[in-house]
Amino acid sequence: MSINFKELANKYQTPYYVYDFDYISGQYNELKSAFKARKSLLAYAVKANSNLSVIKHLATLGAGADCVSIGEVKRALKVGIEPYKIIFSGVGKIDSEIKEALELGILMINVESAAELDRVELIAKELGKIARISIRVNPNIDPQTHPYISTGLHENKFGVDIDTAKRMYIQCKNSENLEPTGIHCHIGSQLTQLEPIKESVQIVADLVRNLNAIKIELSFFDVGGGLGIVYDDEKLIDTNEYAQAILECLFGLDITVVCEPGRFLVGNSGVFITKVLYEKVNGEKRFVIVDGAMNDLIRPALYNAYHKIEVLNDNKEFSDCNLVGPVCESGDFFAKNIELPKTEHNDLVAIYSAGAYCFTMASNYNTRGKVAEIAVENGQDRLIRKRETFEDIIALEEDYLK
Amino acid sequence: MSINFKELANKYQTPYYVYDFDYISGQYNELKSAFKARKSLLAYAVKANSNLSVIKHLATLGAGADCVSIGEVKRALKVGIEPYKIIFSGVGKIDSEIKEALELGILMINVESAAELDRVELIAKELGKIARISIRVNPNIDPQTHPYISTGLHENKFGVDIDTAKRMYIQCKNSENLEPTGIHCHIGSQLTQLEPIKESVQIVADLVRNLNAIKIELSFFDVGGGLGIVYDDEKLIDTNEYAQAILECLFGLDITVVCEPGRFLVGNSGVFITKVLYEKVNGEKRFVIVDGAMNDLIRPALYNAYHKIEVLNDNKEFSDCNLVGPVCESGDFFAKNIELPKTEHNDLVAIYSAGAYCFTMASNYNTRGKVAEIAVENGQDRLIRKRETFEDIIALEEDYLK
Repeated sequence: MSINFKELANKYQTPYYVYDFDYISGQYNELKSAFKARKSLLAYAVKANSNLSVIKHLATLGAGADCVSIGEVKRALKVGIEPYKIIFSGVGKIDSEIKEALELGILMINVESAAELDRVELIAKELGKIARISIRVNPNIDPQTHPYISTGLHENKFGVDIDTAKRMYIQCKNSENLEPTGIHCHIGSQLTQLEPIKESVQIVADLVRNLNAIKIELSFFDVGGGLGIVYDDEKLIDTNEYAQAILECLFGLDITVVCEPGRFLVGNSGVFITKVLYEKVNGEKRFVIVDGAMNDLIRPALYNAYHKIEVLNDNKEFSDCNLVGPVCESGDFFAKNIELPKTEHNDLVAIYSAGAYCFTMASNYNTRGKVAEIAVENGQDRLIRKRETFEDIIALEEDYLK
Repeated sequence: MSINFKELANKYQTPYYVYDFDYISGQYNELKSAFKARKSLLAYAVKANSNLSVIKHLATLGAGADCVSIGEVKRALKVGIEPYKIIFSGVGKIDSEIKEALELGILMINVESAAELDRVELIAKELGKIARISIRVNPNIDPQTHPYISTGLHENKFGVDIDTAKRMYIQCKNSENLEPTGIHCHIGSQLTQLEPIKESVQIVADLVRNLNAIKIELSFFDVGGGLGIVYDDEKLIDTNEYAQAILECLFGLDITVVCEPGRFLVGNSGVFITKVLYEKVNGEKRFVIVDGAMNDLIRPALYNAYHKIEVLNDNKEFSDCNLVGPVCESGDFFAKNIELPKTEHNDLVAIYSAGAYCFTMASNYNTRGKVAEIAVENGQDRLIRKRETFEDIIALEEDYLK
């Protein structure tokens, strides 16, 4: 990435997010070509970074969209993704969302519980529609061997077990308003080991074969997302090995592979740039205070997540400090006990790996406007989201002042 | 509180926040009258709940505003709080915010570091203004005896130590552009013990006496906020004892007391109402899935905070469950391992103590619009913030699609 952060700071002010669209293309093409032996759909997990221009860029490359709210479905449609490439997932779909998804004719609704399937059936019936259904299977991979997996266990809220899934497919087959179309599993985020993915895909592939035996034929096998990225020094899953492992599990099945990458495509495309306001020392502790804060990027506060951080100056005097923002909470920090060079007012600080689950989680806490988002493509920068003003923040309250 | 949550759900849909303005009046009047022996200013900590109508309600009662960004200052001014009742606090003030605060002529800038004081002086000089200064003193109350205090220790980013504060007041006195006006301490949030507050106020009062001895006279003694509320079964500080303890520490000083309550005024005025979508059982675990989520109310996910929760139905069959939202994260929960009655689709769930640090921290994660906010006053309900639509969410991105 060769982005002139200083130039962008002068042009757009700070803090800002910048995304390298060429990097996103590279990631997309790498994963797509790993699956070249078979029909595949890469459905971008919109929740990772839902800026319209980011989704549009991926749409242009051929991506579909994995959406977890009707808002995300609308984003995908807005930028021109065809309905037949859009999947609607999520454990809690509101009736109005189900209705709208059916009316929009998207590829399939990814159902996560028996109760949800009943509601989809009811709503489809009311509308006189046939709902294309995928069911999210929770493969219950043993947590003792893979403790870092967080969504593929019965103890969490996602998906249904194999037996329930089978019953639900039979319900689909017997219903006039449901059509069994796909199957789905997703065992967690930021995965860096291939083995548990293989295990779960194998379990689900066996279910597909069982379903075939009772004349339930599915068209899409959605292996979920979760491919990890380098934040620190993670050793990643090789994408070719990943695709190979999945395709081996699916041997003999005539089924399109769907993959839902999010973080993998955009995580390391993004950098959050913030400016030093001042330094202070309290007791023994040095603090570097910047103009960005937890409302802009909450991952360190929420998950204790690590982001690589760099001060963009030439100073060689490093010492231990906490890098913190202006928000009035002790939890407002980007890093604790980190070695950073001595800084001056207005020095820029880069917080890397900020392309996924960063801007999307931003809030207006402390009445701070959401920051600007910038795209860089072919060496050209452009604004893709305007910095929020005070007027933007109060727009929906103002009329109700009495 | 006698609010008909069901009626409001029919009228405004779910999820929503509702605030009891009469409760807020009661809390304000209780605290104000506890300080009746002396001139006092209750400066509402806007960050707790910054809805314009909430601030306006408090303004009508006579409150000032404790603000931590220029956006919050503008909110206070917008609803008619006089500049002389507005304080601008926070560890990281941006140059443009300092400039604007000086131009607006607010009561004082609460300075949190020597470096910040230098910047305020520089900017005041450039503008030809005199900046009224308060300094936030970090009293370094021993964490061994009061481990629940989180902001009054040298190890955190807030304020400056006594000696630094003294030097900074001397700098103010000697500067043509600075005027020593107030002093401030705040040792933490959700305090339920009086002793550490007394200790810190005593330390700071001694500093005020020392300053008087060198002819630095301050007009305002800001004791901060932090008064706890009942979330579960907390035993609270009695407001009369609180005021009494503070006034005793200030004996003999001719100084106006400033107090910055936030949570105390609004925390228990608010309820978050969400609707059951479905129930599911994964393995041994029961999940109740509602239409509200962590993007609406992040305190359980972020702080592991407890909120009292009630299902608004008559069912008596209680069993253990997790109450979760639709967001695609294992961290999206309101409560884990809680006994709740069996629920039906569309049953309402009340999450109490949701008036402070709830809506203000809301995000658009998963492209979910911020929910509606409603006020109830004298038995009348009214909308005070419109539910966000898809168009609102994408407004600042749409024009940049190319």
